[in-house]
Formats: sequence, C-alpha cells, structure tokens
Amino acid sequence: MPELRKDPIVGRWVIISTERGKRPCDFIVKHPDTKGGFCPFCPGNEDKTPKEVLSYREPGTSQNGPGWRIRVVPNKYPALRIEGNLGRRGDGVYDIMNGIGAHEVIIESPNHEDTLSTVSAKQFEEILWAYRDRMVDLKKDHRLRYIMIFKNYGDAAGASLEHPHTQLIALPIIPKRVQEEIDGSLEYYNYKERCIFCDVIRQELMQMKRVVTENGDFIAVTPYAPKTPFSIWILPKEHGARFEDAQKNQYRNLAEIFSDVHKRMDKVLNKPPYNFILHTSPIKNGDLEYYHWHFEIMPVLTKVAGFEWGTGFYINPTPPEDAAMFLREVKI
Amino acid sequence: MPELRKDPIVGRWVIISTERGKRPCDFIVKHPDTKGGFCPFCPGNEDKTPKEVLSYREPGTSQNGPGWRIRVVPNKYPALRIEGNLGRRGDGVYDIMNGIGAHEVIIESPNHEDTLSTVSAKQFEEILWAYRDRMVDLKKDHRLRYIMIFKNYGDAAGASLEHPHTQLIALPIIPKRVQEEIDGSLEYYNYKERCIFCDVIRQELMQMKRVVTENGDFIAVTPYAPKTPFSIWILPKEHGARFEDAQKNQYRNLAEIFSDVHKRMDKVLNKPPYNFILHTSPIKNGDLEYYHWHFEIMPVLTKVAGFEWGTGFYINPTPPEDAAMFLREVKI
Repeated sequence: MPELRKDPIVGRWVIISTERGKRPCDFIVKHPDTKGGFCPFCPGNEDKTPKEVLSYREPGTSQNGPGWRIRVVPNKYPALRIEGNLGRRGDGVYDIMNGIGAHEVIIESPNHEDTLSTVSAKQFEEILWAYRDRMVDLKKDHRLRYIMIFKNYGDAAGASLEHPHTQLIALPIIPKRVQEEIDGSLEYYNYKERCIFCDVIRQELMQMKRVVTENGDFIAVTPYAPKTPFSIWILPKEHGARFEDAQKNQYRNLAEIFSDVHKRMDKVLNKPPYNFILHTSPIKNGDLEYYHWHFEIMPVLTKVAGFEWGTGFYINPTPPEDAAMFLREVKI
Repeated sequence: MPELRKDPIVGRWVIISTERGKRPCDFIVKHPDTKGGFCPFCPGNEDKTPKEVLSYREPGTSQNGPGWRIRVVPNKYPALRIEGNLGRRGDGVYDIMNGIGAHEVIIESPNHEDTLSTVSAKQFEEILWAYRDRMVDLKKDHRLRYIMIFKNYGDAAGASLEHPHTQLIALPIIPKRVQEEIDGSLEYYNYKERCIFCDVIRQELMQMKRVVTENGDFIAVTPYAPKTPFSIWILPKEHGARFEDAQKNQYRNLAEIFSDVHKRMDKVLNKPPYNFILHTSPIKNGDLEYYHWHFEIMPVLTKVAGFEWGTGFYINPTPPEDAAMFLREVKI
C-alpha cells in the first residue's frame, strides 16, 4: 500500500510508493519508449489496460472494445489505491495515512498520432466533458478532498507514453499549492470583497499587454509573474469556482480557445513539451465567491534548477508581455 | 534592470530578466559547454571574471591573480543588480520592484577536476568559511532580506559550468518556501515550545531508521517525507538558527560530514547530478528559538513533472528508510 506522508515543518504531503521501492540501480537514465512499439491505448488493445470507467463511443459498440472516441481507464501503475480506509495515524512527530485515492488516464483520442493541436474542436470538447464526468463521479467518494487533472506532454515534461492522454489523480488531502491559492484569494476577498481573478481579468482586458486571445466566454493571458517562460492561463470571464459546474456552452468555448492556444504554442515554440493543470475548487469547498477556476499551461523550455523548486524562487528570462506578443501575433 | 514581480494570488516573487528578453528561437535545446574548452574559473584566467570580492590565497600572491584556494566573484550574468534603489511600486492589482540584489559565484577549488567528493576536508572547510564570510558581509546591506547559498552540480541539475562552484543570491525579499518553513516552525513552537527540528533530530536518533551518518556536531538523515528519492538533510545537533553564527569547530565537523555524505552519494548513485541549498534564518530575523539551520541535498534522479511543481504534490518512488540504508551501508 502506498503511503501519504506529511512533512512536519511545512505540512506538505507526498506519496511514498513503498511497493515500487526503487533501488539505486533503477535510476539509470533512460528515455521512455514513446516512439514506435506497442501502444496499450490504441484501439484493439483495450484488454491491455484496466477496465474502462467511462467511454464515449459509437452506437452499437461494446465497453472495453474498439469504437470509442474518448476512453477513461484506471492507471495500470497507480500512485494511489482506491480500496481501503484512510488510516490517519502518527509516528512521533510525523503524520502518515494510507495512499488512498484514484489515478486514472483519460485517453484523448483513438488516433495515436493526434495531439491537442490536431484534434477537432468537437473532440476537444468531449475531452473536457470526460474530465467533468469523472470529477462529478469521484466527488461522491467522501474520503476524497481534491481532484487534480493534468497533462504531461513530451519526454521532458514527464510523459511516459506517446498516445494522447490526460491524467487524473483524486486525493484524500488538498495539495499545498492549491490551498495556498485558495488562501491567497480569500485574503484578497476579505480585503476588497472582490474575486482577485476577476480583477486580474478586468485589468488584462484594459491593458491588453498580456492577452493572447479571447472569445465570448474565455480569456487566455500570460500571467504577470510567471515562474517559467511562455506560461499561459485560460480563465472563464464569468466568475465560477468549480470547473465541473460550467455551463454547456462554456465547454464548447473552452475547447475552442484551448485548441487555439495549443496551435499558437506549437507554432511559436515548435511543438514544445508542456504540462497543463486544472486549478479548481476543492471537493468540499462549495461554490466559493473568492476562487476562480482556470487552466495553467507551462511549456517546458528551461531547466528548473533544484534551488528553484527548493526555494520557490524562479528566474524567468522572458517577460510575459513579450511571450504574449509572440503568441498573439503568430498566424495559425 | 531586471524586475522582481509578485504573483497577486499566492504572493510568490519571481525575477523577470527583462534585459535578456529571450525570444522563442533562443530556447533551442542545447547542452552547456561543460566538457573541455575554455574555463573562466581556472587559475590564470582571473581577468575573465568580474573582480573578486573575496579570496583565500597563498601568502605573497595578489588579488585577481593566481595563488588562491577559494575565490568569490560576482556572477558575470547576474540575475540581480547590486546598484540602485528598490523602487517598490504597484501596477493596478500587481506589485513590482527593481531587481536589486547580489549574485555571486564561490569557486570551490583551483582544480577544474575537483568535486565535493574529492576536495580535502580542509578545503571543504574553507568553502564553508567563504559562504559564511560573504553572508556576514552582505548582511550589512540593509536593502537585503535573505541570502540563498545553493549548488547546481551536473547538467540535469542546472549547472552551466563544470569547474566546481557554489552560487549565492542575496534578495530584497524572503522566498516563499523559506517563509513557509519559518512559519511552520513557529506554529509548532507556539504549540509545543520546542524547536521542531530539534524534535526531529531526537526522534531520528532514537529510531535510527533514516540516519545516514553522524559526528559530534552534525547528523545526516533522509527526511521522513522527501519530495524526491535520496534527499538528505544535514543538521547541527545543537540548536542554532543562523549558519553564519556557527562555532569554529562546527564548520570543521560540517566539512567532515558534508564530504562524507558526498562520497556516499557518489558511490551509491554513481556521481549523480544534484542540488544543495542552505536553509538559514532570514537576515533581519535574529537568532530564532524556533528555526534551525540545515543543508538540503537533492540528487536529480527523476524527472519532475510539471504537475508536481505546479501543485506542490510529489510522488517519490523510494522510501527514505531504503535510501538511508543504502547510503549508510555503502563502503567509502
């Protein structure tokens, strides 16, 4: 059983995969088998993954067979286990609990060669619906506190399989950085009685220095103080704390702008490795007036030195105004 | 002039190097010129670096010439500038200040081939004295709030030059992760009236599950909830908040254990790339009863996926008890 352990000083939880127990010799640098070879996510290989928990499929096709457009399966090597109780306990000054949670893979397309730049807007919209449907389902599990949706694309961004996919990790704790964002937003709200993200959106639309693109429902901007070059946030213009509570037409417009941003990023940065993360309200927090859901997209262009993630202090060589200009002006 | 910008939601400062202004085409993946070629840090090339701010040298040799054992110079491409005023100001919802601070390089040995595993204990001790002497000097600058001492070793850890060196960045702000550690320690102290690090040391010495090695003044342990495999902390056994206030014989014993830990790490993990960071009290905080200085060493063995540093949530495949066992039992 994997363990969740808490750092006693800063209160950060980590997963310790006690079962994998990597020995020193297991850390030989190797590149993942991303090109060629057998792909467990391709149609026809459905029996090589755990049984699907959701699929959007053509009429007349059967579960765990071909004919799907989107398929969600449990991760074959999950970082957390869904069965069991939390078992919160102490060990002297330390805190520990069982590694309970869900770890799923959203297979974004049956086509191995697809990327989020090449899928149709309709397909992209279904990917977003799959995120939402899994979140709505997992929220019923009262042991869980937060659902992380994130994508690693490319070797340098931590992807281990090439077939287009997103990951979902549902946790019995709220990650520290998420809590920090919630707390920071609340502090501003307590002072101003306004959502800080709404204020950021208003200022960005007025200054037009960091706006990459926008549509009726969404705005894509480079944030004012990004940790890494060419970071992009996509925010709904209308206030909302929870991704899964968005309106139907918002998912369509989000697919449109998300696809647009991927095309711009691929053109300007030549298909870079990247990560994106959905930032949304914790499960039990309700519809907060002070928090505002959004996606953060981070191309992996620079090497993050250990001191940067050790101190939380980053050096970014590209002003976000320059990044926004390149992304805004490129022909797609 | 580089800028320090603050994220309006979480309050994290970043350096934006407005002068370097990297364009998309500058992010072509290239490996730094670490092997062979001209080295500006080698003896005889002293005129290829900015003028030294400190050196320990043989009697009769002159500043900025050969004959040094340790040499500290300003970084030729500094992330921050020492001249000017802070210029704290706002831009609507955002906060900004001038990129004031110091960025220095501690050249650890005249010998290009040395590593912290090969330098003598005496040389290692002088490296630690150089850290201390620079800190004591920079603390006189009342614009500064925190001094970061860190090392990037190897390409994967962010090193851009091979010649053995440590970096120092002095900042007009306290990095968020540092403040978090201070706040977390204070919270524990308010509750228990004891230093949490002292409690951790007592428990580690009792359990002996995560101790790598120890001597009269110091203990090296793998932390209970490490973000990455084979992380190591070196802590003074006696309480102290500030590295620069250590006793003379503590520097000698720190050199001894630090050297020992480097040898163990190199043997077990085959000379891995790594980072280390000195965690010490902020400049203006005085001699805190609740904070305890220490070094954190992190071998770079896994690829940190964006979601990990985006959420502060890490998956570590090696239990620290296993890592400690390998490091403790290796013959050096």
